[in-house]
Amino acid sequence: MSYTVFDYARLKKFTEEVFLKMGCPSQHALMAADALVAADLRGIDSHGVARLSGYIRLWEAGRINANPTIRVLHQTPSTAVLDGDSGLGLVVAQEAMQIAIEKAKQVGTGWVSVQNSNHFGIAGYHAMMALQQDMIGMAMTNASPLVAPTFSSDKMLGTNPIAVAAPAGKQPPFVADLATTTAANGKLEILQRKGQGTPTGWVQDKEGAPCTDAHILKKGGALLPLGSDREHGSHKGYALGAVVDLFSALLSGANYAPWVPPFPAYVPMPTRQPGKGIGHFLGALRIDAFRTADEFKQSMDDWIEGFRNASPISEQEKVMVPGDPERIACDLRLAQGIPLEDSVAEDLRKVAAQFSLSLH
Amino acid sequence: MSYTVFDYARLKKFTEEVFLKMGCPSQHALMAADALVAADLRGIDSHGVARLSGYIRLWEAGRINANPTIRVLHQTPSTAVLDGDSGLGLVVAQEAMQIAIEKAKQVGTGWVSVQNSNHFGIAGYHAMMALQQDMIGMAMTNASPLVAPTFSSDKMLGTNPIAVAAPAGKQPPFVADLATTTAANGKLEILQRKGQGTPTGWVQDKEGAPCTDAHILKKGGALLPLGSDREHGSHKGYALGAVVDLFSALLSGANYAPWVPPFPAYVPMPTRQPGKGIGHFLGALRIDAFRTADEFKQSMDDWIEGFRNASPISEQEKVMVPGDPERIACDLRLAQGIPLEDSVAEDLRKVAAQFSLSLH
Repeated sequence: MSYTVFDYARLKKFTEEVFLKMGCPSQHALMAADALVAADLRGIDSHGVARLSGYIRLWEAGRINANPTIRVLHQTPSTAVLDGDSGLGLVVAQEAMQIAIEKAKQVGTGWVSVQNSNHFGIAGYHAMMALQQDMIGMAMTNASPLVAPTFSSDKMLGTNPIAVAAPAGKQPPFVADLATTTAANGKLEILQRKGQGTPTGWVQDKEGAPCTDAHILKKGGALLPLGSDREHGSHKGYALGAVVDLFSALLSGANYAPWVPPFPAYVPMPTRQPGKGIGHFLGALRIDAFRTADEFKQSMDDWIEGFRNASPISEQEKVMVPGDPERIACDLRLAQGIPLEDSVAEDLRKVAAQFSLSLH
Repeated sequence: MSYTVFDYARLKKFTEEVFLKMGCPSQHALMAADALVAADLRGIDSHGVARLSGYIRLWEAGRINANPTIRVLHQTPSTAVLDGDSGLGLVVAQEAMQIAIEKAKQVGTGWVSVQNSNHFGIAGYHAMMALQQDMIGMAMTNASPLVAPTFSSDKMLGTNPIAVAAPAGKQPPFVADLATTTAANGKLEILQRKGQGTPTGWVQDKEGAPCTDAHILKKGGALLPLGSDREHGSHKGYALGAVVDLFSALLSGANYAPWVPPFPAYVPMPTRQPGKGIGHFLGALRIDAFRTADEFKQSMDDWIEGFRNASPISEQEKVMVPGDPERIACDLRLAQGIPLEDSVAEDLRKVAAQFSLSLH
């Protein structure tokens, strides 16, 4: 594979311009671009500008409303349900997190369940919004069904990620951001482009048999929950993905389980829609609603240093703290630019042409 | 292995009598017995009366205070930090959950982080306390270090379980209750008694090499995080276990990481104690702080029926919903009694003799 390197600020500006051309208000275009390109910056290439044309196709199909009226349907001092009005999840989730943060300022924590939204990019971005407020942030979302529960051959859940971000003192923040599957779909796409198979335990075929075909999702196969099989705890990965669905969609009134709308615009909507759009769940916990932020951060530093100093099994692989790989990618890419695969760069050039924009 | 069958009510009464003999106030003795024997009832034999003598040894060693003054150290409308005063976690966690529920009644959600506690039994019991209030319950706890983070040979985390319980309508409640490891320690104990090895991916030896020795924890080995190895997502299981540690101990001021006090009383306390006792985290979310409980329960029924009707891979293994195996065990054991392994029954007879109690 070959790559073209893009400057971060330029890539973000281009993305913002695309969202403006779609009719997003200027504030939304900026928010959406910042969230989307954060994925590229943090090395999660599958969720960044590689998906920009996917968002455009959804907008063209009338499934994304570029200028939504996002509104609170119901609330208590520590909770809210938000209607995203079919807006970009990249924007709706940030609005939801802002409400969670405001509630946490008032009563210690804030929890917002969102209906009628779309894909929100990387969960970690939204969770990290809490960090600058000395809060712990949480973000979850449901997603198009790609994952089979233990003992089933049906795709019933999305990769349903969970992110938790917590501030430290001298150390960088702790940022866990994980799909509740053994491997994310983006990893399959990489293997597809390389013409390679998957390790065992990542996917199954349409009958539910173990399989290593990286193209199996298009042939009726499914991703496996974290744990891979029953003997290795796949029922736990399934349960975690289910919890994400409950918080994101059952609490908000969004679609759930196999009825979550698909990301590719060419895939028809499920004939049954028990709710509205895609669901998210955002949370903020004010540290000093529990103990002083200083005490907490000192303990976090101690915790993180404990793990960094844990004995490594081999000299090649250091013990890492959740968030380390993404932060390392971020530092490198801010300095040296973001390498985009040729197919992604070509896709962006088509987007530029469609909207009469300049990519460079 | 052979078993003796005990009636649930009798086993619970005996357990209550033991806690009374230890000096627990009558209300605490009842609460502790109910929580402990709930594990046996739900088929989680490793966490039930098999541990009763372990609790007694900790009490004898002065590490458990039978008559604690449990008090709130700090609070906001939706949060509290609780000092368990070295009490039985079985009791302290219930007090914490009760506070979380009261806060949820007032402001929509309640979140209580607990320091200075001890092992609390099964997480699911505490999470399920929220169900009768039409709330979602959450429970987590940290525990003695048995688990190596990805790429390390050091035991740095406990099996750190997460439980989430949500009410349904016609269907039984959804109850996820999972250790953040591939296999729980109790599963190793079963294999030890059978003289069998473990499947691959459950444990590693003291150098961090893959291993199938069910006795390896006593030889410096470690349990593996959910995911087993890096290629199958062990960094995700590690991150989840870490999140449990952060919520349970870093927010409360309890001990964390490898410094969590051990359960066996004969294992010396860690020389370093960065906090107090063991930490828990309990949460309650009032359903109607988001949408009406009726709407939620109807959606839950629909969700659960969708999963029960998902295509099974084989006729031998039905697709299950989190909480099904434990509920099935509970129904069976309420009707037919609780089978205790001979070694556990013998252990209880010694406890009975110690306190001049009758077991039958």
